[in-house]
Order: sequence, then C-alpha cells, then structure tokens
Amino acid sequence: MYSVKELQQIISIEIEKQAVLLGKTKPGNLYQPLEYILRMKGKRFRPALILLVYNLFKEDIQTALPAAVGIEFFHNFTLLHDDIMDNANVRRNNPSVHAKYNHATAILSGDALSILAHQYFLKLTSPNILEILSLFLQTAVEVCEGQQYDIDFEDRIDVTQNEYLEMTRLKTAVLLACCAKIGALLGEGSAKDTQHLYDFGMYLGMSFQLQDDLLDAYGDFSTFGKCIGKDIVANKKTFLLIHALEKANPAQRRILESWLLKKTCNEEEKIAVVKNIFDQINVKSYTETKIERYYQKAMDCLKKISIAAEKKHSIKNFVHMLMRRSQ
Amino acid sequence: MYSVKELQQIISIEIEKQAVLLGKTKPGNLYQPLEYILRMKGKRFRPALILLVYNLFKEDIQTALPAAVGIEFFHNFTLLHDDIMDNANVRRNNPSVHAKYNHATAILSGDALSILAHQYFLKLTSPNILEILSLFLQTAVEVCEGQQYDIDFEDRIDVTQNEYLEMTRLKTAVLLACCAKIGALLGEGSAKDTQHLYDFGMYLGMSFQLQDDLLDAYGDFSTFGKCIGKDIVANKKTFLLIHALEKANPAQRRILESWLLKKTCNEEEKIAVVKNIFDQINVKSYTETKIERYYQKAMDCLKKISIAAEKKHSIKNFVHMLMRRSQ
Repeated sequence: MYSVKELQQIISIEIEKQAVLLGKTKPGNLYQPLEYILRMKGKRFRPALILLVYNLFKEDIQTALPAAVGIEFFHNFTLLHDDIMDNANVRRNNPSVHAKYNHATAILSGDALSILAHQYFLKLTSPNILEILSLFLQTAVEVCEGQQYDIDFEDRIDVTQNEYLEMTRLKTAVLLACCAKIGALLGEGSAKDTQHLYDFGMYLGMSFQLQDDLLDAYGDFSTFGKCIGKDIVANKKTFLLIHALEKANPAQRRILESWLLKKTCNEEEKIAVVKNIFDQINVKSYTETKIERYYQKAMDCLKKISIAAEKKHSIKNFVHMLMRRSQ
Repeated sequence: MYSVKELQQIISIEIEKQAVLLGKTKPGNLYQPLEYILRMKGKRFRPALILLVYNLFKEDIQTALPAAVGIEFFHNFTLLHDDIMDNANVRRNNPSVHAKYNHATAILSGDALSILAHQYFLKLTSPNILEILSLFLQTAVEVCEGQQYDIDFEDRIDVTQNEYLEMTRLKTAVLLACCAKIGALLGEGSAKDTQHLYDFGMYLGMSFQLQDDLLDAYGDFSTFGKCIGKDIVANKKTFLLIHALEKANPAQRRILESWLLKKTCNEEEKIAVVKNIFDQINVKSYTETKIERYYQKAMDCLKKISIAAEKKHSIKNFVHMLMRRSQ
C-alpha cells in the first residue's frame, strides 16, 4: 500500500515531466502557458484519490497513472478558464495564465489542455475504458454547469441553501466522486463498492467545499494559506452568507444587503461587520454541523466497502489532509 | 446512395432537434447560447463528408449520425472560441455568441459544447470506436495548434509559404481529413482505402482554404456571400499576401508594408492598392495553379479507392459544392 505522500510525489514527478515536454512543443505560444500552469505547485489531491482508490484493489499503480494525469490536466484546464471568467489575476501566488500572457492565449491553451486531458484517458488499457470515458465526460459537463450556477449566483441575493448545495455538488463534489469511481473502475472493484466509492467522493467533496467556505471567514491564515475574508469582500454566495441571509432578522438583513450593494468599501470594516452578523446568527456552528454531517456520510460509505479495514488507512489519512483535520 | 443535399438535410434536422433540447436544459445561461449558435444556418459540410464516406461502404447512415453531430458540435465550439480570440462580432450575419451574451458565457458555453461533442462520439457502437476517438482528439489538438499559428502570424510580415501551408493544414485541412477517415472507419473500409480517404480530405481542405483566400480578393459577392477584401483590410496573412510579399520588388514591398502598418485607413483604397500589386505579381493565377494542384491530388486519392466509380458520384458532387465549382 502506498501512502498519500508517496502517491502525491509520484504524480508530481509525472506532471512535472509532462509539463517540461509540453514546454518544448511547438507552437510555443500554445504550449508554454501549459508548462507554466502545470508546474505551479498544487497538492494533486484529485489524481491522488484515483491512485489511492485503485490501490485498494491493485498494486501496479502505473496502470492508473494516465487517468491521474488526465484528471489533473482537466482540473487545471477548469482553473485556467475560470480565472478568465472570474477576472482572477492570481493563482497559487503567481499571475494567472491570462494575466501573465493574454486572454486569447488563456482561452486557446485551456482548450488544448482539455483535449490533452481526454488523450490521457485514451491511454488506459482497462476493460472498463468506455465506462470511464463516459463518467469523465458526464462529470466534465456537470463541472461546467456548476461554474455557470456560481456565475449566475453573483447577481442574486435570494440564492437558497438547496440551490447552493446543488451548485457545490456540480462544481466541486462530482469531480472528487468521479476520481474515486475511476479508481474503482480501473481496480475492477464490484459494482457495489464502485457506487459506494462514488458516493464517498461526493460527500467528501460537499464537506470539503463547506469547510473551504468556513475557513474563508474563520480560518487561520498560517494554515489556510489564503487571505481571510476574500469571499466576504467579493460578495461570494458562500454557504455562510446564504444561511445568514436566510436567517437574518430585518435589521441584520438591511445591514448585510447594504454592504452587498456597495461598489467600493473599506474591506476590513466590511469583513468585521459581516462576521459580526455571522456570529449573531451562529453561522459558524451551523456550518460546522453541516460539514460534520457530510463528513460522517463519507466515512459511512467508506466503511461499507468490502475491503479489509487496515487497507483503508491511506484513504482516511487522505480525508484528514484534504479536510485539514489533525489525525 | 444518398445525395449531398439529402445528407445535409438529415444532419440539419438532427442538429436542430438537439439544439432545441439543449435550449431547454438548465442552467439556461450555459445552454441557450449553444442553441443559438447551433441554429445559425451552416452548410454542415463536415458532418456531410462523414456520412458521404460512410455511405460508400454502408447504407444505414443512422449508425454514423452521432459522429456527424459530434463533428458539427466540435466545429461550432472552435468558431465560438475563435470569435472571442479574433474579436469577431459577427458570425453568419448574426451577432457572435460573445457579442450577443458576454465573454464569460462564450468561454464556458464553448467548453460545454466541446465536451458534448466528445459525448456524441461515445454513442458510437463501432468496433473501431477507440481509433475514432483517438483520431478525433489528435485532430482537435492540431486544430488548436493551427489557430495558434494563425494568431502568431498576425504580428509577422515574414511568414513563409511553407509556414502558411502548415498552418492551413492544421487549422482547416486535418478536420476534413478526419471527417473522411471517420466515415471510412465507421464503414469498416480497408486500411488502404481509409488512408486514401484521409489524404483526400487533407488535399481537399488545402484546396478549399486557398480558394477561400482567393475569393476574398477576387470573388463575386453574390456567390461568395462574404464582403470582398475583408482579409486585405484585416492584414490577414493569406496565401495571396504571403506570395505577394515574397515576390514583390523593393518598390512594391514598400507600398505593401506601408499599408500593413497603417492603424487606420480608407478601406476601399487599401483594397484597390493591394489588389493592384497582386495583379502586377500575378498572384491570382499563381494561387489558382496551387488550388488546382491540391484539387487534382484530392481527386487522385478518390480514384484510388477500391469502390465502383459510380458510387463516388455523390462525393464528387460534394467537392464541387465545397469548392463552389460548377459541375
């Protein structure tokens, strides 16, 4: 059995190798931006999940590596295009691709990266290859739908909790579910185990995104690694803000809405005012309960898988790393 | 055997049906732009070529229809993203998607359309499906490379004829080659016939693009359907301009370069001056010779295919329609 760190390293070495090769491919203006984004140090959580699940069933993880690379390419393609759509000029502490190069380059390089991702999946020799391709494409469509809902929510203040959860399922959770299921399909697990692993990834993804929303407001910068309150400043319809808007009394609602409508403002003041209302409504503990519920559902799915408990250790470790929990 | 017109109609009806379904799918902001672009009346030449070639070998063209729809979706995805990159606000006499909606919508809807194209290919039940998917992805990467070269050429005045021909091979010709080969793979033609059909599509694509370049300068608006001189005004590095720049004497070159460098100018005057130099250098007849050479190569490939000559009538008819030649 491989540890999470070992698998992350195997993937990082492979991505690095492929990125360098791409950087030497012509036309340079198409491929150099791909080397650039792929070499930004990511945590490679998604491809690691594919290999971890595969490793529940089989040992020769090299067989599953093309799917791991394909998913990481796909994930980076979505980041590349999302950054253009969101006007986000920074990615992992570096200029994003469109900021470093230009919009046309970022669009076209992203398109190429998406196609390269598909090509990696075609390298698989699994008897389940058509089911894997079909799952990957279905997931890719859902990720686009999730991103569209996220954009749609920017201009609305009446987003319901259910709408938010569905957006999060599409934008974030289905990709983790897809990774876990691909690992199971490549490992030729039973149909039941494969479905449990899909559900595991889905609940984990929901829990992870709510955690991410929570940490934006209540995280510790030194461990979270992102600025606190960024979502609040950007009026992002996080789980916290949506719950606060739903539960606010008329006075609290007036304050929240007035800050949401301001074109410019003192960012620190805005964060303080909004968090103060979050505190009054107990948004933090409500969100923590929800996170814990999804987390437990994920762990329940993991329990149901017909594999010896000691073999599941690496996956539990993965969950703790992803959720930034101590073990 | 089906005629070109019959196949174009079968495809148009199917695309129309799929477009209407997409337009009813949520989120509407993602899918309605796809209904919009897919319902602009195109000539559906690429999917028609798939079905025409398939029909050389087999009669049940419904079997090949998912590939035809997939290629038309892919082609429209490239148009959608190319229009953003080229700042082209008009497509088939309508506002382009980013002009009618916005940039973020056009990027994300394009991404979804590309994924939907892949999904259509997965609907195929052919024993050659993996080879077809692999060919499609290789072609898709090449089309991105061709578009990148085309963008790179915008800022250069020293593009060579060979560079231009390679760009055209990638941006335009490989997709027609891919269509012809997919038809052969689905029809389960021999390896030799399949290769001849790929080459046929490639030469036809080269001939078609040079013809398109020629018609921009020397076409008849009523039959060409596009404004004359658009490429000249836009400083597009067409085969004609590249040949003219290569063959120009110092005086002619100075005039050409001065017009290429002008930020604003009288468009009619520019077209007249540039065409006057084209005429002095005999650019028209040189280009016609090149078009004819590729055309003959395409017809030679068609001849080599081990199918009764009378069965090739529809494909010859297709070539004449594509090349806007009388029969």
